[in-house]
Amino acid sequence: MTHDVSLCLKEAEALSLRILDKAGFSPAHANAITRSVVAAQRDECHSHGLYRLINCVDAARKGGLDPQAEPVVHDQAPGVVKIDARGGCSLLSFETGKAHLKEKAERNGVAVLGINHCFHFSALWSEVEALAELGLAALAMNPTHAFVAPTGGTKPLLGTNPFAFAWPRPGRLPYVFDFATSVVARGEIELHRRAGNSIPEGWALNTEGDPTTDPAAALEGAMLPFGGHKGAALSTMIELLAGPLIGDALSHETSPANDAGTGRPQHGEIVIAFSPETFLGAQSESQLTHAEALFDRILEQGARLPSQRRFEARERSLEHGVSIPTPLYEELERLA
Amino acid sequence: MTHDVSLCLKEAEALSLRILDKAGFSPAHANAITRSVVAAQRDECHSHGLYRLINCVDAARKGGLDPQAEPVVHDQAPGVVKIDARGGCSLLSFETGKAHLKEKAERNGVAVLGINHCFHFSALWSEVEALAELGLAALAMNPTHAFVAPTGGTKPLLGTNPFAFAWPRPGRLPYVFDFATSVVARGEIELHRRAGNSIPEGWALNTEGDPTTDPAAALEGAMLPFGGHKGAALSTMIELLAGPLIGDALSHETSPANDAGTGRPQHGEIVIAFSPETFLGAQSESQLTHAEALFDRILEQGARLPSQRRFEARERSLEHGVSIPTPLYEELERLA
Repeated sequence: MTHDVSLCLKEAEALSLRILDKAGFSPAHANAITRSVVAAQRDECHSHGLYRLINCVDAARKGGLDPQAEPVVHDQAPGVVKIDARGGCSLLSFETGKAHLKEKAERNGVAVLGINHCFHFSALWSEVEALAELGLAALAMNPTHAFVAPTGGTKPLLGTNPFAFAWPRPGRLPYVFDFATSVVARGEIELHRRAGNSIPEGWALNTEGDPTTDPAAALEGAMLPFGGHKGAALSTMIELLAGPLIGDALSHETSPANDAGTGRPQHGEIVIAFSPETFLGAQSESQLTHAEALFDRILEQGARLPSQRRFEARERSLEHGVSIPTPLYEELERLA
Repeated sequence: MTHDVSLCLKEAEALSLRILDKAGFSPAHANAITRSVVAAQRDECHSHGLYRLINCVDAARKGGLDPQAEPVVHDQAPGVVKIDARGGCSLLSFETGKAHLKEKAERNGVAVLGINHCFHFSALWSEVEALAELGLAALAMNPTHAFVAPTGGTKPLLGTNPFAFAWPRPGRLPYVFDFATSVVARGEIELHRRAGNSIPEGWALNTEGDPTTDPAAALEGAMLPFGGHKGAALSTMIELLAGPLIGDALSHETSPANDAGTGRPQHGEIVIAFSPETFLGAQSESQLTHAEALFDRILEQGARLPSQRRFEARERSLEHGVSIPTPLYEELERLA
């Protein structure tokens, strides 16, 4: 039996800031990272919560990211703002670019934020959700490392490439989804390995290119894309738009940070924002109401909206704080 | 045994133009539709080839589309051009808007073409491919009619909502994919029904909301999205971007044309174009070369590119013409 440690959100923030400060992160980076991991913890997205600070600090120690990097803004075109993260974490770059993206989207209807040369560990939903709270619809995508085989192939090439979308709902929390284009997250296979369980067929191939239910063989081999050739196709689009289109790396050109300092974890991220007000003018309000018909009809038939569980967790956490397993808390305290 | 009728591409075009002229389509619509169905026939996409002329003529007869409608261009914002199809087929609107979209994408980096109030029967790959041939990367999406249940639900709500993407490859045919967000196309279930075959589990639910392998029950009930909740989420994004964002209908608000003239087949389409030249400036050429590394590595491991089969068919058809089953040819000749 494991016990949990309860923290109010302020305590969780303070813990995160102490850890990041000790690891040499600038206050700007520490604040941006803390907002992201505490939001994930609050929403009970444990894999992107306080737990991620361990990787983040470890990557900094291994030279995989620059904890002091100052992002540089480049106004590339009327509809494109680019931010060079200069090896820092993506989150500060997103926060730096957000107002530029909004301004461009509102002027042009649609605009793109391209983040380059960033270390990326965070969930994309927090970014598209932040844009939806500003009244924009938004899409975000990024490559990761070569973990996933293309359909018909047997070798890791594509990242687990997440795809996130948000739509503004006036007076309510936005409509948001965020999914990996692999069948499951890499961490899910890792959890099965640690627990000594086999994985379902269809998740991965071994190094011979054959289907495997052995999680260790899967981690050595190749994960599979969700939805067969369709998910693989979507993943290639993410490679191209969040890679060459913004002048950045493909997943197979990157690798996790390592002790030898030869990892190359940095890559790009693309965020596309649409302004309903600019698309619709005076019709904007009535069309946002119109969109509610879709959500109403999903709920009416007993289905859930993608972020519903997360928003329910948020309500609980805002009232009662968050809980983390004692071993994780102790590991974090050692970093603090 | 059925025999096929061989036509050279010129003959296929002439047949299509005669059919559309007789059905009252304006020359502008007849030309745009003919380019699309002959291109699909040439690429051996039979379900979007000459066969579709039957539906198209039938929809016009039932008042589901206006065969003479003249699209109206509206310059909505620096990054958004909207075309009101005024009840006509989407294809002429796309051709009308294409140059505006290109000009806006090249100026701003990213731009959107929104087509409203159109009758839509064509494959999206031909549109994104045309944009890639102009040097743009492009995404196209549209709702259809309520055929697909959201994950966790049991009733048709979402369309089969296609999602198409193209990326320019200098000196080569573009990288293109185009897929329905349902597990299979509706026509696939119809083909099983006609052949008296059952369908695999996982394709659809019956009207009770239970999984079914009976194609007739599936057509009465609800199709399922590809890739579970991830495919369903992608489909909701298509509903929102190609619906309310451009001031147009959700799939559940539309219905096929019918004899009573009460169908409401018209809806919107959204096309998003990105200009690599504007995103990348002097780096554009080297980044397009960089993108080739992805395609090379897909092919090296024995996997195929999504449009490879279609491009191989194109080569054959350009040399030898196209073949269609005699019964289809005879049905088309009766319309001509």
